[in-house]
Amino acid sequence: MLSEFDLIQEYFQRPRHPARATLGIGDDCALLTPTPGMQTAISSDMLVEGRHFFAGEDAARLGHKALAVNLSDLAAMGARPVGFTLALALPSADRDWLAGFSKGLFALADAHDIELIGGDTTKGPLTICITVFGEVRPGQALRRSGARVGDDIWISGTLGDARLALGGYRLELSMDAASLQAAAARMHTPTPRVALGMQLAQQGLAHAAIDISDGLVGDLGHILKQSGVGATLDLDALPAGAVLATRDAAMRRAFTAAGGDDYELCFTAPASARADVLAAAASVATPVTRVGSIAAAPGLRLVDAAGAALALQLQSFDHFTS
Amino acid sequence: MLSEFDLIQEYFQRPRHPARATLGIGDDCALLTPTPGMQTAISSDMLVEGRHFFAGEDAARLGHKALAVNLSDLAAMGARPVGFTLALALPSADRDWLAGFSKGLFALADAHDIELIGGDTTKGPLTICITVFGEVRPGQALRRSGARVGDDIWISGTLGDARLALGGYRLELSMDAASLQAAAARMHTPTPRVALGMQLAQQGLAHAAIDISDGLVGDLGHILKQSGVGATLDLDALPAGAVLATRDAAMRRAFTAAGGDDYELCFTAPASARADVLAAAASVATPVTRVGSIAAAPGLRLVDAAGAALALQLQSFDHFTS
Repeated sequence: MLSEFDLIQEYFQRPRHPARATLGIGDDCALLTPTPGMQTAISSDMLVEGRHFFAGEDAARLGHKALAVNLSDLAAMGARPVGFTLALALPSADRDWLAGFSKGLFALADAHDIELIGGDTTKGPLTICITVFGEVRPGQALRRSGARVGDDIWISGTLGDARLALGGYRLELSMDAASLQAAAARMHTPTPRVALGMQLAQQGLAHAAIDISDGLVGDLGHILKQSGVGATLDLDALPAGAVLATRDAAMRRAFTAAGGDDYELCFTAPASARADVLAAAASVATPVTRVGSIAAAPGLRLVDAAGAALALQLQSFDHFTS
Repeated sequence: MLSEFDLIQEYFQRPRHPARATLGIGDDCALLTPTPGMQTAISSDMLVEGRHFFAGEDAARLGHKALAVNLSDLAAMGARPVGFTLALALPSADRDWLAGFSKGLFALADAHDIELIGGDTTKGPLTICITVFGEVRPGQALRRSGARVGDDIWISGTLGDARLALGGYRLELSMDAASLQAAAARMHTPTPRVALGMQLAQQGLAHAAIDISDGLVGDLGHILKQSGVGATLDLDALPAGAVLATRDAAMRRAFTAAGGDDYELCFTAPASARADVLAAAASVATPVTRVGSIAAAPGLRLVDAAGAALALQLQSFDHFTS
């Protein structure tokens, strides 16, 4: 039987990154040497089987997603990823699962040149807790509280395909297999917008940012609340995912505005920075779309392409009440 | 019903520490400003109901223990605690449980002057993942790999009462209620030896250290393996907990040597530093006991007070195979 130490050594211990962690897996703590003058950005997310992912979910996709949702938080701060810890509860030390999970995890880690520096493994209901570390120059971090009246509201990439796939899996709506598979890729293997976040932070282009994990309307709501402002959001401007784009307007509006699991960035920037925002996004090959503007009057006003008010009942996802 | 955000605000959000985190709970990431010239020590532990603690365990004790086991890892590196993140899966948002848990958690956090800087909450089987951050001067961290031939082996505090209590709970042995309660306090509310670890690191007294979580023999084994040395351990010198001390020699030897859940420090130091080790320990009111010595010959030799070899079958606790 695979012991805890064998498990770590076989599946999670890799050659040490030459320039990064001073001490990695295998001691009481990992040791990181911060780059002088930089702040450390830290985020921790816990994924529970049956809640954040289906029972029996493919292990490699899960390895990718568990790290991706944390990298998305660093992206929303504009921080450069440095490393992460992994705490893992597993019902059993299944070799196939571990091989798949570590493969998906390290493929994304390698793509961002970051290192697993420590963690914990135990028997238990399948639960994944990753804590991720990044670096950002003081004063450059993108916060939720910085939106200003007159700012444009921007969205990276597209929204809603993950929500559409969920509807397909739940049989709430009919989808052919190819469409479901295409939409589900957005749910299973989200792309954290790290390079875009770093560009926005380093060039000082964005006033506020958040990553869209629980649905745009709810997440934008955090920016509005913490910035003490309101906004107008053009639902017809929201960029729908490729599969969702083939659906009717009502579904497009609902799933782009309040889908969840998108892991795109929502950020605000002054109108004077429009060309710079587009150039920064182009430099990292990340599409961005202008979808509304920040206003002084509190509250979020949803409008259509003609500017007419829409009265939609939208709810963001809550991990306790849903 | 308590939402995720209400839950965090009511039970986990507190006034910001004046001098510590630049940005705490309520954004995509926490921001820490490292003290210039210091390394960051990081450890992450996951506690699962029914595995690391009994179902129905008192919430305040659990809050204490979840943070204590992480602080113990910082202690074993000699790092000064700075802050921590908390990821929490809960079957339901029970107000009594949350009030108790946060009370126990913050009482220990306040005792060490550290701050909860971020985290995550979700519905799920009760699982607690804390990631703790500390600071240590480069070159001063106490590693597992530094033990040298001739070093004394030291233990802080006492061992075995937590294991004794486990035996009492499991009805493996008979205990009166008062004894069980006294011994169980060591299991439920361990004391991380943070001040001792910092003294050893700052004064450069210890060559190697580890915290004893899975049983002394197994944890000392990590030091021996990583340092490429062997050791002789005097089982009769091991300081037994107050309750265990009233039991027979065989049980004392077994439970001090391989009990688990002790959260004391095991460290090695040159014989020339004996007086300094005792003075350092006295300065932080932490008893320490010399229990053996490091040798060149590989392997761990267990002996009695007369130096005669003991052949005990001892097993350390493994979170997968146990």
